[in-house]
Amino acid sequence: MSNQGDREADLCCSPVMREPLSAERAGELARVFKAIGEPVRLRLLSLIASHAGGEACVCDLTGAFELSGPTISHHLKVLREAGVIEGERRGTWIYYRVKPETLGVVSDALAPAEGAVVSA
Amino acid sequence: MSNQGDREADLCCSPVMREPLSAERAGELARVFKAIGEPVRLRLLSLIASHAGGEACVCDLTGAFELSGPTISHHLKVLREAGVIEGERRGTWIYYRVKPETLGVVSDALAPAEGAVVSA
Repeated sequence: MSNQGDREADLCCSPVMREPLSAERAGELARVFKAIGEPVRLRLLSLIASHAGGEACVCDLTGAFELSGPTISHHLKVLREAGVIEGERRGTWIYYRVKPETLGVVSDALAPAEGAVVSA
Repeated sequence: MSNQGDREADLCCSPVMREPLSAERAGELARVFKAIGEPVRLRLLSLIASHAGGEACVCDLTGAFELSGPTISHHLKVLREAGVIEGERRGTWIYYRVKPETLGVVSDALAPAEGAVVSA
């Protein structure tokens, strides 16, 4: 079977694909997709997750962008409010890290269901 | 190890999490996340994917929403332009189906990399 075929078999069985989402569930998932549906926020998420120790402060992040500190802070706030990252103040800085449970939920929503039979 | 720990181990190795995304790649992924980052569009996607035969026309979709036909059509257009669904005209109606290759790319971006070692 082609890769395309495999992919179709996979997606047919993901939670989003196998039955209609409720309005409530769609709202919860869409909130996270919207937060990461912006290139700067997606790059911030990736920078934080891949930074040494899995955490980063604004001081670690601003160098990657031609954006002001307040703009970066705004995007971090959107990610934080959607539950994608969390911040902890230590001394002068807030250190951000990814909340894996949130990303796991949206990843699982698009991923094949556990135990799904993928036809060969 | 707790589920939370497993999840962290998974996400550390996904393409988005293990190294900083390029601006170009972030733009491509964010475009798709933005399209599905809206509750009505996410429900439309789910309705189309789970409909008999994996395809649906507007006539199959409007009943699920208290929204006008043109509003539904607008959301379908956004999904189509992001490459999430594709439409084929047959007779009076356009039949929409999910483009699994697009959803596969964003699902893979958040999913653990193939061959990643998940510590137990």
